[in-house]
Amino acid sequence: MHIMVTNDDGIHAPGIQALAAALGELGEVTVVAPDRERSAAAHSLTLHSPLRVFEIRDRFFAVDGTPTDCVNMGIHRLLPFRPDLVVSGINHGANLGDDITYSGTVAAAMEANLMGIPAMAVSLATFEASEHFSAAAGVAVRIARQILDNGLPADTFLNVNVPNCSADKMNPPLITRQGRRSFVGTVIHKTDPRGRTYYWIGSDEPDFNDYEGTDFYAINRGHVSITPLHLDLTNYDSMKIVSGWNF
Amino acid sequence: MHIMVTNDDGIHAPGIQALAAALGELGEVTVVAPDRERSAAAHSLTLHSPLRVFEIRDRFFAVDGTPTDCVNMGIHRLLPFRPDLVVSGINHGANLGDDITYSGTVAAAMEANLMGIPAMAVSLATFEASEHFSAAAGVAVRIARQILDNGLPADTFLNVNVPNCSADKMNPPLITRQGRRSFVGTVIHKTDPRGRTYYWIGSDEPDFNDYEGTDFYAINRGHVSITPLHLDLTNYDSMKIVSGWNF
Amino acid sequence: MHIMVTNDDGIHAPGIQALAAALGELGEVTVVAPDRERSAAAHSLTLHSPLRVFEIRDRFFAVDGTPTDCVNMGIHRLLPFRPDLVVSGINHGANLGDDITYSGTVAAAMEANLMGIPAMAVSLATFEASEHFSAAAGVAVRIARQILDNGLPADTFLNVNVPNCSADKMNPPLITRQGRRSFVGTVIHKTDPRGRTYYWIGSDEPDFNDYEGTDFYAINRGHVSITPLHLDLTNYDSMKIVSGWNF
Amino acid sequence: MHIMVTNDDGIHAPGIQALAAALGELGEVTVVAPDRERSAAAHSLTLHSPLRVFEIRDRFFAVDGTPTDCVNMGIHRLLPFRPDLVVSGINHGANLGDDITYSGTVAAAMEANLMGIPAMAVSLATFEASEHFSAAAGVAVRIARQILDNGLPADTFLNVNVPNCSADKMNPPLITRQGRRSFVGTVIHKTDPRGRTYYWIGSDEPDFNDYEGTDFYAINRGHVSITPLHLDLTNYDSMKIVSGWNF
Repeated sequence: MHIMVTNDDGIHAPGIQALAAALGELGEVTVVAPDRERSAAAHSLTLHSPLRVFEIRDRFFAVDGTPTDCVNMGIHRLLPFRPDLVVSGINHGANLGDDITYSGTVAAAMEANLMGIPAMAVSLATFEASEHFSAAAGVAVRIARQILDNGLPADTFLNVNVPNCSADKMNPPLITRQGRRSFVGTVIHKTDPRGRTYYWIGSDEPDFNDYEGTDFYAINRGHVSITPLHLDLTNYDSMKIVSGWNF
Repeated sequence: MHIMVTNDDGIHAPGIQALAAALGELGEVTVVAPDRERSAAAHSLTLHSPLRVFEIRDRFFAVDGTPTDCVNMGIHRLLPFRPDLVVSGINHGANLGDDITYSGTVAAAMEANLMGIPAMAVSLATFEASEHFSAAAGVAVRIARQILDNGLPADTFLNVNVPNCSADKMNPPLITRQGRRSFVGTVIHKTDPRGRTYYWIGSDEPDFNDYEGTDFYAINRGHVSITPLHLDLTNYDSMKIVSGWNF
Repeated sequence: MHIMVTNDDGIHAPGIQALAAALGELGEVTVVAPDRERSAAAHSLTLHSPLRVFEIRDRFFAVDGTPTDCVNMGIHRLLPFRPDLVVSGINHGANLGDDITYSGTVAAAMEANLMGIPAMAVSLATFEASEHFSAAAGVAVRIARQILDNGLPADTFLNVNVPNCSADKMNPPLITRQGRRSFVGTVIHKTDPRGRTYYWIGSDEPDFNDYEGTDFYAINRGHVSITPLHLDLTNYDSMKIVSGWNF
Repeated sequence: MHIMVTNDDGIHAPGIQALAAALGELGEVTVVAPDRERSAAAHSLTLHSPLRVFEIRDRFFAVDGTPTDCVNMGIHRLLPFRPDLVVSGINHGANLGDDITYSGTVAAAMEANLMGIPAMAVSLATFEASEHFSAAAGVAVRIARQILDNGLPADTFLNVNVPNCSADKMNPPLITRQGRRSFVGTVIHKTDPRGRTYYWIGSDEPDFNDYEGTDFYAINRGHVSITPLHLDLTNYDSMKIVSGWNF
C-alpha cells in the first residue's frame, strides 16, 4: 500500500506532519508538498516557469509550487510507484461550501482524481491555534481505510472536514452535500511608506446557510463531514432554460 | 447598463481588447484585468500579499493579481456601480471539459457568480495565432444580450467556447454539458547552467472523449458551445454509496 | 554606432522612452529593459530561474528580470552586434551618494562595464511627476557623444544626475565624487485583514552631507553631476591598519 | 556583546548554523535571515511589497526578503538592542573580486556599515558540498574578536574568504585588495513544453587574474583573505580626465 500526502499550508505545517505520521499505519507514505504556504491556490498549475524539488528528508519532498503542481511532481516523477491513495491536508481551517473552489487542499485531491487515483482532502475546522490535529489524523486514517477497502465510487473524491475537538467528543461522520455561503467580501486600501496605494482583499468570517444536509450543518454540530465531490460543474437544470433562448 | 470585463491572458492581450470594444454597444464597459498573463491561475485568490492597481487608460485597470483578484478589486473598489454583467475573456485557447477547473478565465466568472452578478466566460478554441477574435466578440455580444434580456437561471453562469472561424462559417450555438478529458500528463526534467535540476509540468494536447452533448463535441463540429455551470461539486449519486460505509 | 538602452523603472516608463528617442540621433538604438518596475534591484542577477523575452515592438525587448539580467540578455543574445555604448535610465529620481549601491539603474551600467563596454547611468533628480525628461535626454546625448569621441578612461563608467529643469535653466556639468548619506531608516508594521503582521521598510527623504565636490552638492545647486565610478570597493587606507591586527 | 547574523543562502543553510553557533562564545547571537536562498541578490531592497517575519525558534527570525531587508528588519525592528557587530555568512562559495557586487552576503555587511554598525561578510571558497564550515566559523570568530577589540577603521567593513580546508591546513590571513575577474558570460536558450523559448544566464567558473595582493591570489594559495571595503565607488583617477571633456 502506497500513500502520497500533500497540502497547501506547506511541508512544515503541523497538519501534514500529523497526517503523514498517522497514515504510516496503513502503508508507505511519501510526502510531496509546497515549500511554503499556498493557501487559496485553488487548482492553479505552474505552466510558465519551472519547478524545483528539495528532498528535505527521506520521503519528504518540498516543491516550490502549488498543491496541484505537487501532485504532478509526485505522480509523474518522484514516487517510485503509482500510489493507491492521495490524501491532502490536514488543512488548518475548514474547507466548506463554495469556498472549496478556492482551496488548494481540495484541488490537490481533485488533481489526483483527474489522474484516476483515489483521493481525499482533510481539513480541521478551526482558525485557532489548533490542538486537535492528531484527532483529525485519526479520522483521516479511518476514512482512508474505508477507501482502500471499498474503493471510491466512479468520478468521486472526498472532501472531509473535522471538528476541532478530541476524538471522544466528536460526533460520528455525516455524508453531506456542499453548502452555500452568504458572501460578503471587501477590499481595503492603505498607503505605503512611499505614498503609493495598495489593497488587501478582506475576508469576513464566512457565513454559511445552515441548511440540514450540508457540510456546514454537520461541522456546526460537531460531526465529521464527508462530502463526495466530482469535477462536473454542469448545471443540468439550467440547460433546458438556456436552450430556449433566442441566439 | 454597466459591464465589467476581465481575463487571464492579461490586460494587453488581443482577446480582451476585442471583447471590451464589442461589448461597448451594450453599455458602459470597465476593464479590470491582470497586468500580465495568469493562465492556469484557477480560482486562486491573493490573501497574503497586497495588490496594486494601475489605471493604464480611462476605464482600463491593471491589477498585479489573478483574475479572481480582479473581480474583487473591480466590484469592491474600482467600479462606481455594481455591474449588470461580468464577462471574462476572450481567452486564447479553449476551456473545455475538466480543464475548466484550472482556468482563470472561468474562475473570474465563478467569482462574479458567487457575488450574485450574472457572468460568463468566453474562450476562442485555438492555440494558433488567432485571427478570429472579432467574430468571437460578436458571439459574446449576442449571448450577453440574451443574459441581459432573460436573466440567468438561479445559480448559473455560462462557459462559452467559440470555434476559430469567421462568423459566416460558424455553426449555431449548442447548449452543452462539461466533457471529460483523457488525461495523460507528464513532467520533464532538465539541468540548469549551475548544474541543478529543474522540472516542467508538460502537457500533451488534451484529448477529450468525443461524446454527443459535450462542449468538446460541439466545438469539434464548428458550433459555439454554451455550458451552464454552477458551483456545486457534490456528487449526489455517490452520497448513498458512501453512506453505506462502516466508519 | 550601436547603443543599448535599459533602465530599472520598466520598459513602459517615460524616462526610457525619452532617452531611446534622443539617442537615436547618435546611432541605432536597441532597448532591452525590465517588463515592470525593478527599483532598488541593485546588481542582482537571476541565476535560479529562467527569463522570458517579449519583443513589444521593433528593437524594444521586455525581459521579466532585473536591469543586470537585461544587460546580459541584450549583449549575449538579443543584440546583433556588440554595442558601442550602454546607457541606463533615465531614472525617475536621483541616484546619489551611497544610495547608488541600491540602484538598478547604476547596476546596469556596472554590468556593461564588467563586460568591457562603455556605459553610463542617467537619473533625473526629482520624485515629483517629472516634466523634464527631454531636457535630461538632451544632456545624456551630449555626454554620450563625449564618451563615443574620447573613450572612457580605463575601469570607468559614469553616473550622471540631472536637475529637474529646462535646459536653459540648468547649470553646466560638474565632475563629482560620490557623496555620503546621513542614514535614518525605519521599519513600520501593520496588520493585514487576516490578523497577521506585515512590515514595510520605510524611507525618509535621504539626507546627504552637502560637501563641496560631491554629486549631491552639484545637484543641489542646479548642476548636472557626472561621477566617474569603478568597481573597486577596496578601502586601501584601511589595509595597513587591519594588517596590524593580531589574528 | 550582541551580534546579529544573516546570510543569503537562507536561514536553513549549514553555513549560517555553524556561524551562529560559533559566535555564541563572544556574546548573544540573533539570527535574522532570508527564508530561502537569495543568491546574487546584491544590495537589493524590497520597497514595493511588504515583508513577513517568522520566528522559527528562539532568536532565529526568517524574513521573506533579501539579506539587505533582513538587516533593516533586524536593526529597526527585531533586535532588542543595537548590535555591536553584524556578521553575514558563511556563504557557500567564495565572494571574490568584482563578483562581490552581485553578492547578497557582502551587501548585508554593506547595509550594516551604512547604519554605522561594524560588519563583515564571510564566505567559504568552494562550490563542492562543503565539509569545512566549522573551520571557517572558527576563523570568523577570531576576526570578529579583533573587530570587537580594535574597532574597525572609519568607513570600513570586511570581506572575508576562507579556503575550504581544516584549520591546521589553512595558511594565515592576508590583508588583500579586491581582484579583477576575466569575465566571460553567456546566455543559453531552451524551449518549454508549451513551445515557448526561455533563457538562462549561464556562468562559467569565474576566472580571476591571479595578481599578488588580491583576494583571489590569497585564496588560491590556501590563505584566509581579508579585504577591507568601503562604499565609495568613485574612480578618483578618472575625475581629472573626464574634467577635460568638452560638454
